[in-house]
Amino acid sequence: MAKDSYLVGLIGSGIGPSLSPALHEREADRQGLRLLYRLIDIDTLGVPPEAVGDLVRSAHGLGFDGLNITHPCKQLVLEHLDALSPQAEALGAVNTVVFEGGRATGHNTDVTGFAASFARGLPDAPLERVVQLGAGGAGAAVAHATLTLGAGRVTVVDALPERAAALADSLDRHFGAGRAAAAAPDALADLLTGADGVVHATPTGMAAHPGLPFPAGLLHPGLWVAEVVYRPLETELLRTARELGCATLDGGGMAAFQAADAFRLFTGREPDSARMVADIAGIAAADEPTAESAGGTVGARK
Amino acid sequence: MAKDSYLVGLIGSGIGPSLSPALHEREADRQGLRLLYRLIDIDTLGVPPEAVGDLVRSAHGLGFDGLNITHPCKQLVLEHLDALSPQAEALGAVNTVVFEGGRATGHNTDVTGFAASFARGLPDAPLERVVQLGAGGAGAAVAHATLTLGAGRVTVVDALPERAAALADSLDRHFGAGRAAAAAPDALADLLTGADGVVHATPTGMAAHPGLPFPAGLLHPGLWVAEVVYRPLETELLRTARELGCATLDGGGMAAFQAADAFRLFTGREPDSARMVADIAGIAAADEPTAESAGGTVGARK
Repeated sequence: MAKDSYLVGLIGSGIGPSLSPALHEREADRQGLRLLYRLIDIDTLGVPPEAVGDLVRSAHGLGFDGLNITHPCKQLVLEHLDALSPQAEALGAVNTVVFEGGRATGHNTDVTGFAASFARGLPDAPLERVVQLGAGGAGAAVAHATLTLGAGRVTVVDALPERAAALADSLDRHFGAGRAAAAAPDALADLLTGADGVVHATPTGMAAHPGLPFPAGLLHPGLWVAEVVYRPLETELLRTARELGCATLDGGGMAAFQAADAFRLFTGREPDSARMVADIAGIAAADEPTAESAGGTVGARK
Repeated sequence: MAKDSYLVGLIGSGIGPSLSPALHEREADRQGLRLLYRLIDIDTLGVPPEAVGDLVRSAHGLGFDGLNITHPCKQLVLEHLDALSPQAEALGAVNTVVFEGGRATGHNTDVTGFAASFARGLPDAPLERVVQLGAGGAGAAVAHATLTLGAGRVTVVDALPERAAALADSLDRHFGAGRAAAAAPDALADLLTGADGVVHATPTGMAAHPGLPFPAGLLHPGLWVAEVVYRPLETELLRTARELGCATLDGGGMAAFQAADAFRLFTGREPDSARMVADIAGIAAADEPTAESAGGTVGARK
């Protein structure tokens, strides 16, 4: 009687401006499904990030079909799940939980979402030498995606050297020795000179963090540039790179594909990813970005 | 972005066959609202009825807009609420909880629902002397409704004399001395001879409890007969009474109006009660009643 109806939500901090409710509900509407997407903000609830386990259990009991999980709960939720997808296990982070048959399984559609967006947007991009800026949560997810896509070597640059080193170590353990390296920001000029492309996974370029993540002079026409920031869709980095003739990929694709992959997991229905990419553009264009609007399920968070 | 969307549910035991999801979701669909109605069955969850407080708090935190509450939690939920409607307070039972502004308020739309159904279905029925069979939870609600509608005196008959006496005492305290009385089943023949009408609020007539609640010979054409059972809509009592020329009221109206009143509380929108009454008839007709299908938000429960 109440079949073909789906109750999902997002647990995290400061998630009020998330695009996920609109992305999921619009796609469900087009498919004729009854889907409700609720924001469960730990700040509003006044509970600590560690409460994610209780929230997940409660949601399961109250009839949720699944949840997205975002900052600062993506690692904390792990111990409260019954099973993990290979991506979630490799990354040690979960952004999607599916309840089925009394079990809670963790997935990571940030990884699969970036991979899908990259494969669609930069299908012929050479991947031998990739430089990545940012070794936070989003950085870890996209580095896993890039290596899964077959990147020869990803060099991770972060203002915090120990964070870059830890991510490179973890990538090497998972993908094989020599697939990843860490470098300090002062090595960036040399690295980009010899690179095929650069993945940007820091918050720079968001409304609250305007500007370029590195001097424009380090870009060159042979470099592809992939962005994780999607608010705004056209960051200063992307505009500068495009003017220079670089192939570029905006962050909207990752945002849309991570939602599409979660939608598929939640509903078992095949989403129309292209429509969801178009939704992101529409929503992001209509949106007046603020300092708080940089969140959501994906985002270049520290 | 996610406005005009409503998440509601029902907490109780054995509620799988409840009509409430269909009633609420159909009316929401017709009004263009996104509404999801989830069943939260304490038997499925393996928690005791006393867990209703935790479930209500969790639902509030996870973004529910409101809840229906049914057997065996209608009294247990009281202590977990911030405020009560007059009907809920008078009855000491809540079947609808609304979350608004961080507060949980309890209502009882079984009372308002029966009153609305009676006023619509038997508008000219004399109410001087009313006999009611059944002093359980449904009986308490409909007795409150009948006295609120202006009944001169309601005499409550129950197989458990102390339960009938307790309800009569409670009604007298609330509506004034002499408005209610208790009687044993063996007084029924005399009571019905002099009565204007009879309200039936026991499970007899449901698929699992077929038959008549009292001998057919006690009915007479001057009596109106109001039924609380709504599965089936035409009970043996109603059929017998109608054949005798009695004015009758089936239980579908109460089921529809309690849902309509809850819908109004949940959404702030005016439901089309007549459409919801028609829905009940359609659903009940399509439904193959089983021993388990006697539940729901209302029902002639013990």
